[in-house]
Amino acid sequence: MTHIDPSHIARCAQLAMILEVSATPKPGNIDRDHNYPGTRFEHFLASAVGVYPMLEKAAISKTGIGKLIYDSVTESSKWQGGGNTHFGAFILLIPLVMAGGRCGNKKCLEEEVSKIVRETTVDDAVNFYRAFARAGVKVKPVADLDLKDTDSIEKIKAQGLTLFDLMELSVSYDMIAEEWVNGFGKTFECSTLIQEKIRKYGINDAVVLTFMELLSRNKDTFIRTKFDIKKAEEVSMRATSILQKSDMARIRNGICQFDEELLKEGVNPGSTADIIIAGLFVSLFEGMRF
Amino acid sequence: MTHIDPSHIARCAQLAMILEVSATPKPGNIDRDHNYPGTRFEHFLASAVGVYPMLEKAAISKTGIGKLIYDSVTESSKWQGGGNTHFGAFILLIPLVMAGGRCGNKKCLEEEVSKIVRETTVDDAVNFYRAFARAGVKVKPVADLDLKDTDSIEKIKAQGLTLFDLMELSVSYDMIAEEWVNGFGKTFECSTLIQEKIRKYGINDAVVLTFMELLSRNKDTFIRTKFDIKKAEEVSMRATSILQKSDMARIRNGICQFDEELLKEGVNPGSTADIIIAGLFVSLFEGMRF
Repeated sequence: MTHIDPSHIARCAQLAMILEVSATPKPGNIDRDHNYPGTRFEHFLASAVGVYPMLEKAAISKTGIGKLIYDSVTESSKWQGGGNTHFGAFILLIPLVMAGGRCGNKKCLEEEVSKIVRETTVDDAVNFYRAFARAGVKVKPVADLDLKDTDSIEKIKAQGLTLFDLMELSVSYDMIAEEWVNGFGKTFECSTLIQEKIRKYGINDAVVLTFMELLSRNKDTFIRTKFDIKKAEEVSMRATSILQKSDMARIRNGICQFDEELLKEGVNPGSTADIIIAGLFVSLFEGMRF
Repeated sequence: MTHIDPSHIARCAQLAMILEVSATPKPGNIDRDHNYPGTRFEHFLASAVGVYPMLEKAAISKTGIGKLIYDSVTESSKWQGGGNTHFGAFILLIPLVMAGGRCGNKKCLEEEVSKIVRETTVDDAVNFYRAFARAGVKVKPVADLDLKDTDSIEKIKAQGLTLFDLMELSVSYDMIAEEWVNGFGKTFECSTLIQEKIRKYGINDAVVLTFMELLSRNKDTFIRTKFDIKKAEEVSMRATSILQKSDMARIRNGICQFDEELLKEGVNPGSTADIIIAGLFVSLFEGMRF
């Protein structure tokens, strides 16, 4: 059965990361035609290629999510000098890949991934914090656990918090945490949206349109953290109004203009991109080809 | 030693294929901004990701180049529906990856790859012919061995021709065969050119400028086969005149215009792209990062 071949699962995850960053234009984010100073399209490609061994290991692992995320961040940085590229994506992909290694179909994947994240430990939480520090992500700290505070790891240990517990603490404001706590609902929805669109629009536009739909429905965590909730709401409303335009030509023009505006302001909906990667992984796992 | 980790070698080869197809504009060829009808940028990405297991296997193999090329073509076609993407690249990459698995430096790589191709067998030649047929490449047949002629395999066996023998028969008109016979000279030269340029120009433009230099110096086999030698010569002369322009802005403009013209005519220098992939592999193997 090819679907439980760990190499097959790992390649689905690699390709998901590569297709996501290639799809253009994804308003505000790096794609094949848009770079940020210091972080470029090619850094994302190199990161996706570089983490293969951690993905393959995840596909045969039953435990150790925190360490696998930490090792993925470390390996990614060995292959490219553009800084944090896939930290959020790894948090979603690692448990999905672990579930994929045990499953032959989507129903099983949905059940397993929920089980896997609930089985995380205090060690996973500690490794996750180490990975956060290593990736250099700017994030809203979880409850009173400040990432810059080295005592936080001691607090996690003292309070016996698992990685799933940390996600529950952030669920109200973090899309990635919400996936962990709510059975990867947006990930599977995203996969359905992409697969519905691919025949009509091709792979690039299927990803772009799904990205816009996700953005219109959710306040992106990355924007919320970098700016504020008002900015995230504005971006969602803007995405909604573009998707309501009367035909595809107008929608396309609207997306391009939106992209230029967000890039200029440095507003990058990074968490929405992470959900796209997770959704692409599920689609490829299910056998989507083009 | 990371450089003899088969996964590391395989990832260098994956990334080489991905960086080559991403670099834009590469006159006449598919890149991140240019597709051909039926074959798109994303087909190349999926192919590069898909062949990972064959690359990893090559890195630990001492024999079986023909079968590895055949399996790579087969696996590539399972991951994408765009037809032949990397056949020429596999012919160069497979022996380079095999050599990479035994070597810690470029000097060793150069020696080993020459040895490996000379040790090929009649079986390798037969599998190579099967791969050719499977990839659906339009090529000038080797000597009197017509690829469409099923008797060719019998002739190869009867004459006891190895894969290296076949390459020797094509050396006068085929850049890929020339690499096999002449110690991968252009591949290593290409690697040096890319590494010389990467600091000043970044990874994209280092690849584009090296592509132009190779094109100016060599009559591309793919163009020669699809059109004729006159067309290949014209393209080389055109590339030379663009590179002689007085400054980078003019060179860039010249490359963009050249790209549009070649795409319009369907003139794609595919063999030059294969050498770029091989050169990128050597560079990444040597530790080039960006």
